[in-house]
Amino acid sequence: MMNVNEFEFFVPTHVLFGAGQLNHLHEQDLPGTKALVVIASDPFTKTLGHLDRVVNELKLAGIDSVVFDKVEANPTKEIVEAGAFMARENGCDVIVALGGGSVMDSTKCIAMFTPQPSDDLWDYAGGITGRNLPLVNPVLPWIAVTTTAGTGSEVDTGAIISRLDTNEKILIGAPNHFSSYAVVDPELMLTVPRRLTAYQGFDALFHSTEGYLGNGCALMIEPLQLAAIENVATYLPRCIEDGSDLEARTHLAFANTMSGYSMDFTGCIACHTLEHTMSAFSPKLPHGAGLIMIAEAFYEFYISTHIYDERLVRMAKAMGKADADKPEDFLECLLALEKACGVDDLKMSDWGFTEEMLPEMAKNAFDTGNGFTLDAAEITEDIILSIYRRAFK
Amino acid sequence: MMNVNEFEFFVPTHVLFGAGQLNHLHEQDLPGTKALVVIASDPFTKTLGHLDRVVNELKLAGIDSVVFDKVEANPTKEIVEAGAFMARENGCDVIVALGGGSVMDSTKCIAMFTPQPSDDLWDYAGGITGRNLPLVNPVLPWIAVTTTAGTGSEVDTGAIISRLDTNEKILIGAPNHFSSYAVVDPELMLTVPRRLTAYQGFDALFHSTEGYLGNGCALMIEPLQLAAIENVATYLPRCIEDGSDLEARTHLAFANTMSGYSMDFTGCIACHTLEHTMSAFSPKLPHGAGLIMIAEAFYEFYISTHIYDERLVRMAKAMGKADADKPEDFLECLLALEKACGVDDLKMSDWGFTEEMLPEMAKNAFDTGNGFTLDAAEITEDIILSIYRRAFK
Repeated sequence: MMNVNEFEFFVPTHVLFGAGQLNHLHEQDLPGTKALVVIASDPFTKTLGHLDRVVNELKLAGIDSVVFDKVEANPTKEIVEAGAFMARENGCDVIVALGGGSVMDSTKCIAMFTPQPSDDLWDYAGGITGRNLPLVNPVLPWIAVTTTAGTGSEVDTGAIISRLDTNEKILIGAPNHFSSYAVVDPELMLTVPRRLTAYQGFDALFHSTEGYLGNGCALMIEPLQLAAIENVATYLPRCIEDGSDLEARTHLAFANTMSGYSMDFTGCIACHTLEHTMSAFSPKLPHGAGLIMIAEAFYEFYISTHIYDERLVRMAKAMGKADADKPEDFLECLLALEKACGVDDLKMSDWGFTEEMLPEMAKNAFDTGNGFTLDAAEITEDIILSIYRRAFK
Repeated sequence: MMNVNEFEFFVPTHVLFGAGQLNHLHEQDLPGTKALVVIASDPFTKTLGHLDRVVNELKLAGIDSVVFDKVEANPTKEIVEAGAFMARENGCDVIVALGGGSVMDSTKCIAMFTPQPSDDLWDYAGGITGRNLPLVNPVLPWIAVTTTAGTGSEVDTGAIISRLDTNEKILIGAPNHFSSYAVVDPELMLTVPRRLTAYQGFDALFHSTEGYLGNGCALMIEPLQLAAIENVATYLPRCIEDGSDLEARTHLAFANTMSGYSMDFTGCIACHTLEHTMSAFSPKLPHGAGLIMIAEAFYEFYISTHIYDERLVRMAKAMGKADADKPEDFLECLLALEKACGVDDLKMSDWGFTEEMLPEMAKNAFDTGNGFTLDAAEITEDIILSIYRRAFK
C-alpha cells in the first residue's frame, strides 16, 4: 500500500459550481477565439436550449462556435477523429464540451488530437494496440459544461475511448490536460431521465469508493471521497424520486465532482476495469449499469480479503449506517441504495452477455488492467473470472 | 448568509505534500532562471541546512539563486520593498519562499511588486492609506517551501503586511497570484520550537473554524475544514509533546494546508481582524498567540448569537467530543486543547496591552474590518470592544 501521508495535488481547473453558474461563464477569462462545441448525437442538448445558451455565453465572451453533434455513449476512436477533423477544418482553438462523460471524454481527446500531425488517434493511445507516440504540438484548451452527474470528467484528464475492431476500451489523455473552466450547474441536470440518473450516480459513487479503497488514497482526498459517498447515498434516491429536486441534484452534482477529484489523486481499482471490458463486449451497455451489475460480487471479494475493514466501515457510516462496525455493513448499504434507486434488478444476460463469454472477458480485463497497481488485493485472471461468474445472472 | 451550495474553486498551485518531498522539487517543471530565495532573518534556515537544500534543488533545475534573509515576524512594507529592490538589482524572475507565513507573505508581495514601476509598495495596497493603483506589469511566479504549519500561505494569494507608522496590518496581493509549486514537507518542521508550534497550530485551527463559521463556507471546503480541525485537535498536542514526531507533524502540516484552502474559498471572520489589530499595536506579538488570547471571548460571543449552533456542534465532534450536542461544547474542546498545548496562560498584559488601549484598538479593528462581510453576526465597534475587554487579563 502506498503512503496516504504523501500526495501531489494539481488541478488547475477553475470550477464554477452551483445552480445558475452557466450564466456566469462569459464573465470569465476564457481561452480561444473559435470553439468546437461538442455535444451528444441525441437531440436533447438542442431541444432543452442548453446548446443555444452555451453558444451565447461564448459569443458574449467574443468566441465563435461550430457544433459537433455526433458523440454517443462509449465514444469511439472514429468519433474523436471526426471531431478533430472538423476542428482542424474550422480553425478551432478551443474545444467546449456540453454534455456528460462521453462528451467530455471525446472533447479532451479532440483537444489533444486536433493540433497533432497524425490522422490516426491510436498514434497517441496506449492500451494493447496503441502506438504511444509523443505529442508533437501543444494541446488545445478545453472547457467543460457538464449536464450529468456521473463521471467527474470535468476535473480530470483521462478519457475512456473504445476501439471496436480490437475490443479495446482504454484511457487516453495528455498529461495535466485539465479543463480551463468547468461549469457544474445542476439546473442543466434536472431533466436527466430516472434510469440514467441512477446509472451515473452509481458511477460517481464507485469513483469514490474505489478511490478510497485504492493504493493512491491520500489524506487530502479522503474527506472529499467520504463526502461524495455520503451525498450520493443521501441524495441519489431523492433525484430518482423527483428529478426536478434542485437541492438533491446539486448535492449529487457535488458528489460527482468530488469523485472526479478522487480520480486526480488516485483512480479506480479493478471494478472499473472489469466494467470497461463489459462495455467493450457490449457497447450499448451504460457504464454505470455495468458497474452496478458486478458491484456486489466485487465488494464481496474485497471484503473477503479483510485488507480494508476499517475503510469499508467508514464508508458504511458515510452511507448512513451510524452504528456500522464490520465491513459487510458497506455491502448492506450498497444493496439498500441499489434497491432505493430501482437498479437492483439489472442482469448481465439482458445485455447480451452469456456465461460462455466470461473467460474471454476475464482475459481481456486482466490484460487491460496493467497489473492493477492501485489494488491492494492481488487481482488474477481467475479472481476476475470468479467475480464475473458470481455477478452473472 | 451566502449559499453553501454555490462556489468557485481555482487553486492552480501544484502541491507536493509529505515527508521527503523537498527532494523532488528539482524534478518539476519550475518557472524562472534566477531566483530570489526569501528566508527569515534568524539563522535557523541556514544552520539547519534547509537553505542549502533549496538552493541545490533550484540549481539541479537550472535556476541560479540569490538570498534575501531579512524577513521578521509580521513583515513590513520596508522589508517587502527591500526584497523587491534586491530582486530587481539581480534580475530575478522567480521568487522562492523558504520559511513560514511571514516569509511566504513577503515573497508573494515581492513577486507582485518587483516588476512594477513604483518604489512604494503602498501604491498597490488597500487598507486605510494605500493608493490601490492597478498593476502595470505581470507579476512574477513564486514557489513556496513551507517550514511551519500555521498560515496555509503556500496555497493562498493574500499577504498580511504591516505599516508601522500608520498602525496598519492589511491584506495585499494580486488576484490569483498562487504559488506555482508548494512543497509541504513535514521533515522541515521537526525543529519548530514547542511554543511556536502551538501558536502556529492554533492559527491553522482558527483559519478553518473561522472559515467554517463564515458566510463564504461551501460544500467543497466543509469536509476539508472539519478534517483540518480534527487533525489539529488530534496531533497538535503530540507535536508539542515531541516535536520530532514525524507522523504528528505530517498531520498538523496537512491540517494547515487544508486551512489554507479554506482561505481560498472564504476567509476568516472577525476574530482574525481583531488579532491583526493587536499585532499592529504590539508588533512582536505572534499572530497565533494573539488569536489564542481572544478566542474564548470571541467564540463566547458567536455562541451567544445562536447563528451557528449546528456548526459549532460539528466542530466539537471533529475535535473529539463524539457526543457533542450544544454549541458550548466547542468552547469546552477549544479550552481543553489550549490547556493540552500549554497555551491557556497567555495574557494580553504580558505583551504591552493596557485596558486604556482597548477603545482605540476596537476602533482600528472596526475600521480595518471593511464591514465584516463574512460574519453572519453583526460586528460593531462596541462588540469588538466588549470582546477585547472580556479577553483582557
